[in-house]
Amino acid sequence: MLGRVRAGSLSPEDAARLLGELPYAEIAHAVGSSVIDHHREIRTGVPEIVYGASKTADQIAAVLGELARVAGCAIATRVDPLKAAAVKTLLPAATVHELARVVALGVQATRPPARDIAIVCAGTSDLAVAEEAALVCEFLGARVVRVHDVGVAGLHRLLARLVDIQTTAVVIAVAGMEAALPSVLGGLVGQPLIAVPTSVGYGVSVDGLVALAGMLSSCAPGITVVNIDNGVGAAIAAVKIARLAAESP
Amino acid sequence: MLGRVRAGSLSPEDAARLLGELPYAEIAHAVGSSVIDHHREIRTGVPEIVYGASKTADQIAAVLGELARVAGCAIATRVDPLKAAAVKTLLPAATVHELARVVALGVQATRPPARDIAIVCAGTSDLAVAEEAALVCEFLGARVVRVHDVGVAGLHRLLARLVDIQTTAVVIAVAGMEAALPSVLGGLVGQPLIAVPTSVGYGVSVDGLVALAGMLSSCAPGITVVNIDNGVGAAIAAVKIARLAAESP
Amino acid sequence: MLGRVRAGSLSPEDAARLLGELPYAEIAHAVGSSVIDHHREIRTGVPEIVYGASKTADQIAAVLGELARVAGCAIATRVDPLKAAAVKTLLPAATVHELARVVALGVQATRPPARDIAIVCAGTSDLAVAEEAALVCEFLGARVVRVHDVGVAGLHRLLARLVDIQTTAVVIAVAGMEAALPSVLGGLVGQPLIAVPTSVGYGVSVDGLVALAGMLSSCAPGITVVNIDNGVGAAIAAVKIARLAAESP
Amino acid sequence: MLGRVRAGSLSPEDAARLLGELPYAEIAHAVGSSVIDHHREIRTGVPEIVYGASKTADQIAAVLGELARVAGCAIATRVDPLKAAAVKTLLPAATVHELARVVALGVQATRPPARDIAIVCAGTSDLAVAEEAALVCEFLGARVVRVHDVGVAGLHRLLARLVDIQTTAVVIAVAGMEAALPSVLGGLVGQPLIAVPTSVGYGVSVDGLVALAGMLSSCAPGITVVNIDNGVGAAIAAVKIARLAAESP
Amino acid sequence: MLGRVRAGSLSPEDAARLLGELPYAEIAHAVGSSVIDHHREIRTGVPEIVYGASKTADQIAAVLGELARVAGCAIATRVDPLKAAAVKTLLPAATVHELARVVALGVQATRPPARDIAIVCAGTSDLAVAEEAALVCEFLGARVVRVHDVGVAGLHRLLARLVDIQTTAVVIAVAGMEAALPSVLGGLVGQPLIAVPTSVGYGVSVDGLVALAGMLSSCAPGITVVNIDNGVGAAIAAVKIARLAAESP
Amino acid sequence: MLGRVRAGSLSPEDAARLLGELPYAEIAHAVGSSVIDHHREIRTGVPEIVYGASKTADQIAAVLGELARVAGCAIATRVDPLKAAAVKTLLPAATVHELARVVALGVQATRPPARDIAIVCAGTSDLAVAEEAALVCEFLGARVVRVHDVGVAGLHRLLARLVDIQTTAVVIAVAGMEAALPSVLGGLVGQPLIAVPTSVGYGVSVDGLVALAGMLSSCAPGITVVNIDNGVGAAIAAVKIARLAAESP
Amino acid sequence: MLGRVRAGSLSPEDAARLLGELPYAEIAHAVGSSVIDHHREIRTGVPEIVYGASKTADQIAAVLGELARVAGCAIATRVDPLKAAAVKTLLPAATVHELARVVALGVQATRPPARDIAIVCAGTSDLAVAEEAALVCEFLGARVVRVHDVGVAGLHRLLARLVDIQTTAVVIAVAGMEAALPSVLGGLVGQPLIAVPTSVGYGVSVDGLVALAGMLSSCAPGITVVNIDNGVGAAIAAVKIARLAAESP
Amino acid sequence: MLGRVRAGSLSPEDAARLLGELPYAEIAHAVGSSVIDHHREIRTGVPEIVYGASKTADQIAAVLGELARVAGCAIATRVDPLKAAAVKTLLPAATVHELARVVALGVQATRPPARDIAIVCAGTSDLAVAEEAALVCEFLGARVVRVHDVGVAGLHRLLARLVDIQTTAVVIAVAGMEAALPSVLGGLVGQPLIAVPTSVGYGVSVDGLVALAGMLSSCAPGITVVNIDNGVGAAIAAVKIARLAAESP
Repeated sequence: MLGRVRAGSLSPEDAARLLGELPYAEIAHAVGSSVIDHHREIRTGVPEIVYGASKTADQIAAVLGELARVAGCAIATRVDPLKAAAVKTLLPAATVHELARVVALGVQATRPPARDIAIVCAGTSDLAVAEEAALVCEFLGARVVRVHDVGVAGLHRLLARLVDIQTTAVVIAVAGMEAALPSVLGGLVGQPLIAVPTSVGYGVSVDGLVALAGMLSSCAPGITVVNIDNGVGAAIAAVKIARLAAESP
Repeated sequence: MLGRVRAGSLSPEDAARLLGELPYAEIAHAVGSSVIDHHREIRTGVPEIVYGASKTADQIAAVLGELARVAGCAIATRVDPLKAAAVKTLLPAATVHELARVVALGVQATRPPARDIAIVCAGTSDLAVAEEAALVCEFLGARVVRVHDVGVAGLHRLLARLVDIQTTAVVIAVAGMEAALPSVLGGLVGQPLIAVPTSVGYGVSVDGLVALAGMLSSCAPGITVVNIDNGVGAAIAAVKIARLAAESP
Repeated sequence: MLGRVRAGSLSPEDAARLLGELPYAEIAHAVGSSVIDHHREIRTGVPEIVYGASKTADQIAAVLGELARVAGCAIATRVDPLKAAAVKTLLPAATVHELARVVALGVQATRPPARDIAIVCAGTSDLAVAEEAALVCEFLGARVVRVHDVGVAGLHRLLARLVDIQTTAVVIAVAGMEAALPSVLGGLVGQPLIAVPTSVGYGVSVDGLVALAGMLSSCAPGITVVNIDNGVGAAIAAVKIARLAAESP
Repeated sequence: MLGRVRAGSLSPEDAARLLGELPYAEIAHAVGSSVIDHHREIRTGVPEIVYGASKTADQIAAVLGELARVAGCAIATRVDPLKAAAVKTLLPAATVHELARVVALGVQATRPPARDIAIVCAGTSDLAVAEEAALVCEFLGARVVRVHDVGVAGLHRLLARLVDIQTTAVVIAVAGMEAALPSVLGGLVGQPLIAVPTSVGYGVSVDGLVALAGMLSSCAPGITVVNIDNGVGAAIAAVKIARLAAESP
Repeated sequence: MLGRVRAGSLSPEDAARLLGELPYAEIAHAVGSSVIDHHREIRTGVPEIVYGASKTADQIAAVLGELARVAGCAIATRVDPLKAAAVKTLLPAATVHELARVVALGVQATRPPARDIAIVCAGTSDLAVAEEAALVCEFLGARVVRVHDVGVAGLHRLLARLVDIQTTAVVIAVAGMEAALPSVLGGLVGQPLIAVPTSVGYGVSVDGLVALAGMLSSCAPGITVVNIDNGVGAAIAAVKIARLAAESP
Repeated sequence: MLGRVRAGSLSPEDAARLLGELPYAEIAHAVGSSVIDHHREIRTGVPEIVYGASKTADQIAAVLGELARVAGCAIATRVDPLKAAAVKTLLPAATVHELARVVALGVQATRPPARDIAIVCAGTSDLAVAEEAALVCEFLGARVVRVHDVGVAGLHRLLARLVDIQTTAVVIAVAGMEAALPSVLGGLVGQPLIAVPTSVGYGVSVDGLVALAGMLSSCAPGITVVNIDNGVGAAIAAVKIARLAAESP
Repeated sequence: MLGRVRAGSLSPEDAARLLGELPYAEIAHAVGSSVIDHHREIRTGVPEIVYGASKTADQIAAVLGELARVAGCAIATRVDPLKAAAVKTLLPAATVHELARVVALGVQATRPPARDIAIVCAGTSDLAVAEEAALVCEFLGARVVRVHDVGVAGLHRLLARLVDIQTTAVVIAVAGMEAALPSVLGGLVGQPLIAVPTSVGYGVSVDGLVALAGMLSSCAPGITVVNIDNGVGAAIAAVKIARLAAESP
Repeated sequence: MLGRVRAGSLSPEDAARLLGELPYAEIAHAVGSSVIDHHREIRTGVPEIVYGASKTADQIAAVLGELARVAGCAIATRVDPLKAAAVKTLLPAATVHELARVVALGVQATRPPARDIAIVCAGTSDLAVAEEAALVCEFLGARVVRVHDVGVAGLHRLLARLVDIQTTAVVIAVAGMEAALPSVLGGLVGQPLIAVPTSVGYGVSVDGLVALAGMLSSCAPGITVVNIDNGVGAAIAAVKIARLAAESP
C-alpha cells in the first residue's frame, strides 16, 4: 500500500481511510460469508490470491471486487471457463487468461523489487500450470523467463536453454509423468529450485502423485516442492526469494 | 541340455537317462513337497531359478541339489546371510555371493550364444540389485558390462560412460529414489532398455514404489519395467533379447 | 531418413535441407510453444509419437504437421473422438482409427527390417489397447500377428493359438482385471514377453492397478511390463527387439 | 455335543451339566477377561477357533483349556514358535504343528459328515497357509486332498493333478504373488472354489494385497475369497459346504 | 443342453448339430473379434455371462445373440440404461431389468436342481446389486428369498427375518459403507455365507473398499467375499453350493 | 413423540395409534422395498435422517413422506439439485436448502432441551458442509452459533470470534485442505470438539483424506472426528452432548 | 489447581508460587529442549499427558517430573516395557501399568465432577487400548464401567451387558478387525459414542486402517472416532462430555 | 575451494593439484564402486553430502575420506548408532552427533556468506530431524536460530518466540503428526518458509505421510516442502536462499 502511495496511484487520504477499515472485511453471500484478510500483505508480503475452484462465480466476483477496492488489483486462480465467463459478466473490467484459468482485476500495483524467475516446463501438457505460476509471479512484481518443452527425454533441448536459466535468481520447474526434469536441473544449476508436479499422465501417474513423489525423492538435494498443479504456491515462494535476493543484505 | 552334450560335459547316455526322468520331480519336505520343473528350460529357454526368500535353508538346499543333479548347475537368489551360511553347510560345494544374496551350485553349463548386456546403476545403494542381475545374466551365458554410480544428479558421470553402454545389445538400468536414470538413458540410447526399481529411499520413496511408478511413467518411450528389486526378472528378459540378437535372422 | 532417400521417397537435396534445419523445431501455440525433437529417431531409432491426451486439437494438428513435414509421416495416440474429429478438420489428409484412438498422417516411411510381433489379448474389452499397440508396431515397420480374446478362464482358446504365437520373435500380452494371461503365456513360450495391463475392471481392479501389479509379480520370470493402457510403450519396446532379431549379429 | 454323546465320548449326564453352564464362560486374565462363546457351535455349526496372534501365551492356554474342558478338544492358530513353546509348557498335552503355526488340544470330537476338500497350493512358499487350512478342515471333520506346488508357470504340473482335484466337493486354492492359480483352476473345475491369497512376494506384491486383489478380480466367475493368509476362514467356509454336500437334500 | 433336450425345448438333431460346432465360436467385430466359449457350461456347470461394462452395445448384442442361438438363453450384466436401450433396439426380444442393469434374452433353460438362496441386503442403496445377484441366481435355476433393508443399525429388523433366512441353503449378504451386516449374520446362522460389498458410501467408504476390507476382516469366521458390486460372482458361487446341497451325496 | 403430545401438536389418540403401528414400516419401491425404523428415536434419541445420495427421488419422497406421517417432520441430506427439484414436485410441501443439499418436510417437532452448539468453518468452500450440520442441529432442536471463514492462515480472524465460541457447550469445526483449524481451536477451548473434514482441496488433498487424517492426528488431544463431509454425523453427536449438558445431572 | 487447594492437597501459598512461574517451563535435554505447557489445564480443562512413543526414557522422566512438581501428578502413555523400566529407575515413585503401557507419577489430583463412562471392547486383543483409555479416564477423575470381549460375532454377549452400558453418560467402544461393534451399539444406545479403532488384525486389516474406516463409515449416525489405538484421545473426549453432563445446566 | 585458498587453509599449489584431478574420482568397494562428484560444489554451490542409510560403514568411511581429502571436510547423514561407531573406528578423527545421526570429518571449510536461518520444531519428538537440518546448515556456513517445542496446541509458546524467528532470512519448520505448525507460521511471517514433515506419529499418521500431505495442502500459500525427515534437503534449500539474501543484488 505504501508503494502505491509513493507511486502516486493512491492518495495519502485514501490510504489512511483504507487503513482505518482494516484489518479485515466480511462479505455476506447467499448463505454464509467470507472474511477478507486485507492485512495479509502487511504481515506476509503477499496479498490474498483468490482460490476459485470451490467458490461460485458470485463468490469469486464479490471477493475479487472487495480485494481490488482496497488494494487496487486482485487475482483469482482455478477459474474454469464457465465460471470465468460468469465472473466476466459480473465484473466486465476483469481480464480472463484462459489456458492458465486465471482472472485478474484492476491495475497492477507497485510491488517490492524482485530479481528474475525462470519457469521451466517439461512438456506442452504442463503449459497451463507453468502459465498460472508466471502470471502470479508477474502479479507480484517479478519478471519471468519462460522455458518450455524441455523434458529430459531430449536432453539437448534443456542444455540449449541452460544459460537463460542461469541468469535468474530462482527456478521453478514444472513437470508431470515421472518428473525427472528437476533432478537433472538440480545437478546443473545452483539457484534455489522449486518443483511443481502436474497432473499430466495416465495409469500409475494419473493425478500427479508420481510426479510429486519423484520430486520429493530427488537425488539432487535442495529441491523443494509444492502441491500438484500448485502454480500459485510455487510463484509466491519464488517471489519471496527473488525479493530477498533484490534487497541489500 | 543338448548344449552340454555337445560340449562334452554330459555323456549322451546320461542325457538320455535324465530326459527319461523328466518332465518334473517331486521332493518331499518336512511338511509338504516341491515340484521341480526340469522341462522349463526346454519350454522357455531358461531353467528354474530358486527364489530363496520364503523358503527355509533346507528347502533351498534340496531344490538346488535336485536342479544341479539334472542340469549340472543351479542358482538361488534372495538368500539372506544366515540362510546362505546354512545352505553352505548343507551344500559345501555351493558358492555364496554376499552382497547380491546369491548362492550358486555346480559348473556353469553351456548356454545359447548371447550378445553383451550393460547393467547401469544410479547409486552405490543400488549395487546389490545390480549385482544380482549381473550374476544371473552370467549364469545364463551372457557377458555383462557393469557401469556403476552414474545417477543423473551428476550428468557428466553418465555421459562419460555412454560409449561403453552403446556397444551392448540390451541395457538394464537399476535405480531407486525418483529413478530418473532410465528416462535420461532412454533419450540417449537406442537399445531395448529394461528398468529395475530398487527399494532405496525413505519417506515417500520407501520400498521403491516411487521408483517403480516413475519408471512406468517415463517420458522416454519404450522402457519396460520389472518388479522392485527384481534383478532376476530383468536379467532373464535381457538374456532372452541378447540371445535373439545373437541368432541369425 | 536415409531409408526414405534410399527408397526414393525423398530426394537427397531435400534430405540435406531437412538435416540442415535439425535437430529441433519450435512451434508457437496460442500460449507457449512445443519443441519438436526431429533428431530423436537418429538417436534412439524411434521418431516422436504424439501423446494426444493432454494436448488440444490445435496443438496435436500443429505437431503432427511439423513432424510429417520433415519425416513424411507421423502418428498421434490417445486422441478421443471429439478431438480426432477436430484434428481431421484441421488436417483432412489424416486417418482416424476410432477404437484405438489413433490419428495418422502421411505415407508410411521405410523403416529398418524387423521380425514379426504377436499381440495377444485376454478379452474383448482389451481390444482398444491391443489395437493401439498394433498400429504403432506397423507404423514402425513390424508385421503384427493378432490373437484376440484368449483369456485363461477358457484355457483351450489360448492353447489353440499357441503355434501362431510361437512363430514370432516377441510377444505383447494385453490383459485387464487380474491379468493372469502373461503368467500362463510366460510358462509356455520362450520369446521376450512384454505385458500391458489395461484399465478394464471394476471394484478393486478399477483403473488397472491390480492388472499392473499382478504382471509385475508374475511367477513366470522374465516378463517386463509397461504402464497401464500403454500400448505405445509396449510397441516401441517390441519393435526395438524385433529389429535386433532381424539384424545379423 | 450331541454327536459326542452319540459317539459315547461324553455321558448324557456330563452333557446335561455342560449345557447347564452354557451359553458362555468368562475367564479372568491378569488385566481384563475373555468371554468364551460355548454356544457358537450350536448356533453356527463351528466351534470357536482361537486366534493366537494378538493373545499372550497365558491367554491362549487359558482359552484353549476352557474350550477343551467343555467340548473335548480345541485348536489355536497363528501361534508363533516362541508362544507355541510357552503354551506347550502350560498345557503339556497340547500338540504343536510348527510350519502351520497351529496348537491343538484334546481328542478329535465327532463332527457332522462332510465330503472331501481339495487344498491346492501354487508354490512351496504357500505351504504354511495351506497346512493351516488343512488342519482346521480335519479338526472340523473333513478329509483333505493335498495338491502342492502346482503354480501356473508350469501348467502341466496342475493338469497332471486335475483328476485328484475333481473328485472332491470343494476346492481351496492357496497362492501368493500374482495368484493366477484360481483363475486357471476356475476355468477347469466346476466345484465351489475358495481362494486364499498369501503374503508371499516382494516389491508390489509384498503382504499379499496383489494376490488378494487379483483373486477378487478373477475373470473366472464364482470364485470367493478370504483375507490374506486366512487359512482358517477358508477351511470353515469349505467345511460348511462339504457338510451341505453330505446331507441328503 | 441335455436338460433342454430332455425338456423338449431342443430336438436331439439340433443338439447334435450344436455339439458339432463346439467348443467355441469366433464373432468378428468392427475391429477385432470375440471368442465365445460354448463349452464353459460343460466344463464348469455355468454358461458364460456377458460382462457389459466395457463392451459396446453392438458387441453385447452380438455375443448375447450367439450365446442364445446355441444355449437357448443368455444374460448380460452391467449394461447401463443408454446401452440397454441400444441393445433392445438391436435385439427386440431382449428383456431389460433397469435397476439391476441386466439384459436377458431367450427362454429360461432347464438347469440342475438347486436349493434356495437367501439374498439379504443392508440398505435401500444396495438394492441394485442384490437384484443383479437375484436375477443371475434365477437364470441359473435357483429360487431366491429376498430380504431387504435390514442393516445392523436397526438390529430388530434383521432378527425379525432370521427364520426366513435360516430355511435356505446359502446366504448372500449385500452391504456397503462399513458392511457390518455379514459379521452379525455370520454369528447367527450356520449356512455358507457369501458377502458382496457395494460401492455405497462417501468419504473414506467411497467405492466400496472399506466394505470389502471389513468383510474380509470379519470376526465371524467362514465368510467368503467377492469383488465390490459383484452380484454375478456371488450368485454363481451360491448356485454351485445350492446345487451341491441338492445332490444326493 | 411424547414431546409432541405434551406440546399439543399430536392428540393422545393419534399417538396411541402411531405407537400401535410401530416399530417399523415397510415401503414397496418399483424394485424392492425400504424398512422405516420408526422406533429409532425411542431407542437412540434421534430419528432416522434420510441419506439421499444413493436413493432415487421417488425413494427419497416415499421415505420422507412415511417418516413425516408418523413423526410430524423429516429431513433428507445429500440431495443434489436435480433430485431436490424432483422431490419438490412429488412433495410440494417440502423445503429445499440448496447450498446444504437438504430437503425438509413438515413442522419442526418438539425436541429435548439442548445447550448451544458452535459451528466454526475454515473457509468459504466449507460452507455447504457447515450448513448441512447446522440445519440438522436445528432440526434436532439445538440453537447454532455460526462462525465462518476463520482459517488459521489469518489467525486474528479466529481469535476475534473466540468469545462467541466459548459461550457454547460443544464445538463443531469444519475444515478442508490441511485442516489445521481443529488443532489450533483444540488448544484454545475446553469444550468437546468434533471435527468434520471436507473434500475441499486438490492434488494430495483431493477428496478430504488429508483433512481427515490430519484431524485424527491432531496434537491437540480429545478431538473426535467424523467421516469426510459428514455434517449429519457431527450434528447428531453434538446434539447428544448438548442435550446431556442441558439435563440436570 | 484450585481444586487441589480446596481439597487441601496444595497450600494457597504454594498455589500462588506455582501460578507465578507459569504459563510454561522449558526443560533442557542432552540436545534441544521441551517446553512444558502448565497452563493447558486452565485453558482446556485437561493437563498435558506425555506421549512416550517418540521420547527417550530420559525425556519422559524429565517431563513427568516437571509436570508432577507443579500439578501433583502426571501420566505418560505409549511407554514400552524397556522404556518403562528405565523410567522407573529414574523415578522410583512411578507406577507402571504394563498391558496399557502407561506410567503414572504422584497422587491423584482432585478433578471436576464427571458422570460414569462405559468402556466396551470387542475382543481380548483390544484390552491394551481399552485399559489405556480407562486409566486416563480415571486419572482425569471419571469412574469407568469396563465391558470386555463382547464382539458382534456372539451378539448375546453384548446384549447381556447392555443395561450396564446404558447407566453411563458416555460410551467408548474399542474394536479392531472390521470393527462392527460401534455400528451395532450405535443402534442400541442413546448416549454419545466414541469409537477407538485398534491395530488388531492381519492381511487387509493390519494396522487398524480398516477398523478406522469402518467406524467412520458406520451406518449408525452420530458416532465420532479417534486415531487408531488412541485410547488417550477417546478418554479425554469422553471425560469432557462426562463433566458437562455432571454440571448443572 | 577458492574460499579455502583465500582463507589460507589451502595453498594455491594444492588447489591446482586438486583441480587437476577433478572432476570426479572412483573408489572401489568390495563389490562395485562409488563415483565421487568433486565438481558438484562448483556447479551447484553445495558439496556432496553422504547419504548413509543404504551404505555400509566401510563405504561411508571411504567416501567421507575421499571427499575430505579434496575439500578439507565432509559430512554424512542417516548414520545409525551401530554404523556410526564402526565409521568412528575406521576414521578416528570423525565427530559423531548421535541424536541427529550425523558423522562429520575435517575442519569446517570457508563458505560463501549467508544470512541466518530459523529452525522451528513442533515437538520434542521432532528434535532429531531439526538437529540434522541445523548441523547441515552450519556445515554449509549459515548461522542457525533454534526454536524448539512450539506446536500449535499451545499457541502462546510459538507467539512468544515470533520475534526471534522474524530476525532471520529463511525459516525451516519441522513437524510431525498433523503438522499444523507451518500453516500457522505461514500466516504470521513473511520470509521464505520450508516445511519438513517428520515420521512422528501413529495410526493414520505413521511414517509422516499425513504431515507431508498436510504441509503440501497448507492454506497458507508459498510454503515449500521436502521429503519426510529430510533435514538435509531443507538445509541445502535454506542455505541457497540465505546466500542469495547475503549477496548484493
